[in-house]
Order: sequence, then structure tokens, then C-alpha cells
Amino acid sequence: MAQARPLVLTQGDPAGIGLELALTLWRDRAACRTPPFAMIASPGAVEVRARLMNLGVPVRRIADPGEAEAVFEHALPVIDHGCDADAAPGKPEPATARGTIRAIEMAVDLARSGAAGAIVTNPIAKSVLYAAGFAHPGHTEFLAALAGDPPPRPVMLIWSEMLAVVPVTIHIPLARVPAELTTRLIVETAVIVAREMRLRFGIAEPRLALAGLNPHAGEGGALGAEDAAVVAPAVEALRALGIAATGPLPADTMFHARARAGYDVALTMYHDQGLIPAKTLAFDEGVNVTLGLPFIRTSPDHGTAFDIAGKGVARPDSLLVALKLAGRLAAAGAS
Amino acid sequence: MAQARPLVLTQGDPAGIGLELALTLWRDRAACRTPPFAMIASPGAVEVRARLMNLGVPVRRIADPGEAEAVFEHALPVIDHGCDADAAPGKPEPATARGTIRAIEMAVDLARSGAAGAIVTNPIAKSVLYAAGFAHPGHTEFLAALAGDPPPRPVMLIWSEMLAVVPVTIHIPLARVPAELTTRLIVETAVIVAREMRLRFGIAEPRLALAGLNPHAGEGGALGAEDAAVVAPAVEALRALGIAATGPLPADTMFHARARAGYDVALTMYHDQGLIPAKTLAFDEGVNVTLGLPFIRTSPDHGTAFDIAGKGVARPDSLLVALKLAGRLAAAGAS
Repeated sequence: MAQARPLVLTQGDPAGIGLELALTLWRDRAACRTPPFAMIASPGAVEVRARLMNLGVPVRRIADPGEAEAVFEHALPVIDHGCDADAAPGKPEPATARGTIRAIEMAVDLARSGAAGAIVTNPIAKSVLYAAGFAHPGHTEFLAALAGDPPPRPVMLIWSEMLAVVPVTIHIPLARVPAELTTRLIVETAVIVAREMRLRFGIAEPRLALAGLNPHAGEGGALGAEDAAVVAPAVEALRALGIAATGPLPADTMFHARARAGYDVALTMYHDQGLIPAKTLAFDEGVNVTLGLPFIRTSPDHGTAFDIAGKGVARPDSLLVALKLAGRLAAAGAS
Repeated sequence: MAQARPLVLTQGDPAGIGLELALTLWRDRAACRTPPFAMIASPGAVEVRARLMNLGVPVRRIADPGEAEAVFEHALPVIDHGCDADAAPGKPEPATARGTIRAIEMAVDLARSGAAGAIVTNPIAKSVLYAAGFAHPGHTEFLAALAGDPPPRPVMLIWSEMLAVVPVTIHIPLARVPAELTTRLIVETAVIVAREMRLRFGIAEPRLALAGLNPHAGEGGALGAEDAAVVAPAVEALRALGIAATGPLPADTMFHARARAGYDVALTMYHDQGLIPAKTLAFDEGVNVTLGLPFIRTSPDHGTAFDIAGKGVARPDSLLVALKLAGRLAAAGAS
């Protein structure tokens, strides 16, 4: 197996829980088996946070992610993004926006050049960045814009050891789902999922299970027409493309253990249909993976959590799984 | 504690898995701790099925459910509904419809007279009953019609040791949910749930958690207006009625273990929002409880399963939990 290229972790909003979770996972690296990573941040701000929270973590400035693995044994390796502004835990500060953004840009540059094997992103607060002139709808769209012109279409995968699930429509009102759900949208999403399962996850013939939109997948039309009219043709089109797709399946019986053994990824037609089973099964251990980008990106499945930042109560479970999965995917891609 | 009144179990469609599951649970009564019950069926048909499947179960005809407990130690007690027609496993037979219906009618009579403490119903096939002139939309509506005139409004609770959940809208296309979901419907449903949790489940101050309709419960209106316009006023109205209701809550973070500890029953706005977590957490051990009737009714959370009837592979888990819960509720009601 080839040597895995190093992971880079962006700082996220420095008023959120990202810094303390990274510090905690370095401190507990032996017990947690934390994969080595380089954080992109202000080394000074990281040191201040470590002292403030009595975490006893030495910080070492590095220039190249390639140094991270050796340094990681003794200190938390930090790549300086050159923006000194800091924020107190729980007190978002617009002056930090430039550093938050710069960390993401540098991470993408390192990943695109091959210097980094994968990017793990800490959560940002869009409202803080918007106040500083950020003009993208969100974190993922910003990564897509940095990835190419025109930007590739990103696809959100929620992943845990229990379940991998992709919602085809995401952050829209439930009432808009039936109109926005098209055969084309399902097929385009599933094609990206199938390609990335082969490329990144090393699954030669990924099995995709597509949920029906309606209760009981429409029950032969009695409970809605879309399953036969929209979802079933997508399954047929995917099969014609050589993709092992099944469905439309009744969503309520897709997610228990025996059912999950029958597929690699579930595609759901809307947000809660996929996020409910994902977070019911693995609330603390779920991670967000962005498929469709020319690099690997994972992120913890929580936000900045300003309300608990600095209190030492935030759980690093999801960030740890995000780092571990990024490391696994980077190794698979490098092999 | 008062002596619990006996349970009666309807035969369901004799071509389905109901008979064999009842026979199996009698045979394994010691290991399964099967609560004593009287089955309402054709004693002859039950004996034939026991022999056909080599289950070695003696059948004893009884006239009064009060005899069930003593008989249950030595034989499966059966109350004869007087209709001899039989069906082979997996081969539904319209001539059996009269017995299937008669078993339900007799069970309701026994429960309403107080001779039975609770009804457990085996699954029926509506299509078989329709062919014989049955004119109700379903099993539950038939029970409601037998319960009073005008019929009481039944409310479906999906119950397991892990989660109790009530979908406010049920078997309708997803596209119709936003229009059919009204503050009044939510409040009327929740009032029945709260009353029955006190009356049947012995929970003095039931805590109800109401899901939002939209992703992230609408995220302040950005992801849909209904959570603020329809669900939140229902929560306020319930609180004004002295009911401990919370919500609208983001549905995806309501169903993990720590979240579930905060409520007794979850109310979801549509079918899959509630049935997904219920069946993800407890696929084999979930039961259906009909609230709002003047008697206790539980049923296994599966159908007739004609495709596997008679093969000895059907799992009795859900029927067992339905019997146990019925026994528990009957005992609570009698105490």
C-alpha cells in the first residue's frame, strides 16, 4: 500500500468548537488513534485556545503538510494562514472571517496540488462570513467554486459505519420536494455517487438503494404517482448505465440492519428521509462527505456550536470519524 | 394489582401467517413468556394448520375468555366463531372472509362487555374481504365502526421498547401532507395521545415531542413556513391545555437515544417521518396500538405475508410484543 498523503484540517470559525476539538483529538491521539493531520489556522490563536482551556497541547508551525506526520507525535502541526485575528469562544468576530476563508482556500490548493491527500473542514458560520463579504450560499458551494470553473456539482453523503445515505433534494421546504424531484436529478446524483464509490471508497460495483417518495413507495399509485412516474424510471436508467440500483423501496423498511446489508448507499428523495435514519443510528459518529469534487472532503456532522464553545463539553466523536474516514479515503486514492 | 382480564387474539386471514405465529407462540410459551390468550378462530382450521406444520399444538375449544388462562398451560384455547371455511397457507379464499370478520366482531363484543381485557388482531387482507362485501377502508376503521356510532377517531401509535411514535397524517401522498396538516388536526391527535398515555399507559404527565414538517423544523422560515404557522401554534395550544408538548423539533435529531429520553411519545407530521425511525430502531419488535377506541387494541406491525405463509419462516417477534403490550395495558387498566 502506498504511503497516504497527509490530511489538512481547516480551523473553521475560531469562535466555534473546531479549535478545541482539534486540540482534544491531538491530546488524546493515542486513545483515539487520531490520524496525523496538519491544521490550517493562526498558530498563535491555537496556542491561546490551548492555554485558555488548559489542554496542555504544544503547537508547532509547519510550512508543508508533508511534515505533519513526524511532527504530530510531539506537537500539533499548524500551517499558518497569515491572519492573526482571533475570537473568544462563543463570540464570533467578523475580523476572523479572512482567516477562516483563507484556511479553506489553502486547503483546496494543497489538495489540488497533491500536497494534501484530503481536506477535513471544521464548521463555519455563514452569517459571520457574509458580514465580511463572503458571497457563496454555503461551505460546500465555496469548495466547489474553488474546485473549478464551472464549479462541479457537489453531492452530500452522510456516512457512518452503520449507514451511507445521500439525500437527492436537501435544504428545501417539504412542499417543494415533489416538484423539484425529477428523474434527471435522481440519475445525475446517483451517477456521481456510483462513480465516487468506485473511485474513493474502492467499491467495484456499488449497490445503490433508492427510496420511494411516498409512504410504501406509493403502494401501486394509491399513495402517490411519483414513485412510478419519477423514481422508477431513474432506477431503470441507472441499470441501463450498468449501475446496480434498486427501488423505489418503501423508505420505512430500508434502514434496519438486515435491509442495510443489501446496499452500499441509500439515496433518499428528501432531507429528513435520509437524515432521520442517519442520525438515529449514528448521532455522534456521522460525518459529511462531499462527493463530486476533484479532492476528498469530509466534515463533522455538527455546526459551530457557539453556545458550548470553550466549555470543554463538545464531543469530538464526529470530527474524529471525519479525520479517520478522510485518512482511509486518501489511502485508497493513493494506492 | 388486580387480576388482568384475558387477552383475545383474532385469527386474521387464515391464508396468512397469523395462525402459525399464534401456534408457534403457544408452543414456545415458556421460552417466549407468551401471555395467555384465547384465539377466536375455527378450532378445526387451527388443528389442521398445527398438523400441517408439524407444530404439535393441542387445541382446546373454550366458550369464555375467562377459561383461557387455565387452559393455556395445556392447550391453545380457541373460541369458535362458527365459520368452518378454511384456506391453505398462501392461498387466500373469499369463503373465509365471514370468519375473519366474525372474529373481529366477537373480539369487540368481548372487550366491550369486559369479558376480555384487550384485543390483539392478526393481519387481514382487505382485498379478500372486499371481494366478500366488506365496506370499510381498513381494519382499524372497522374496529372504530364497531366501537360506536358515530365511530370514535382512531389514532395509530407505533410502539416498541425503544420508541413510541404517532404520525399525524398517515396514508396519503407526500405532496398532500402540507395541505392536510392543520393545527387542529395536530391538536386533536395530540389530545387523544395524551389522554390515552394517562389512561392506558399509566403515564401521569405524558411528554409529547412534536416534529417539524420541514428540514431543521423550517430553520426560522428559510426552509418552509408551516413549522411556525401550523406546528408551533399546535404546541402552544397543547400547553394551554396543560399538556407537556415541545416542538416543532428538527426531525433528524429527535430519534437518537439521548433525544428519546426526553419524551414519552413523538408526534410526526407524516408517515415516513415516524415510521422510518420506528422501523430502523425496532424492525421485528414494533407493534401497532390503536388509541382512541373504548378498548385496547394492539396488532403486529406486519401484514398477512401470503408469500411466506406455511413455510415456517415467519418471525413471531412482533405478535409476541403485541400480546405482551396488550397484557401490560390490560393489567394497567384493570388495576
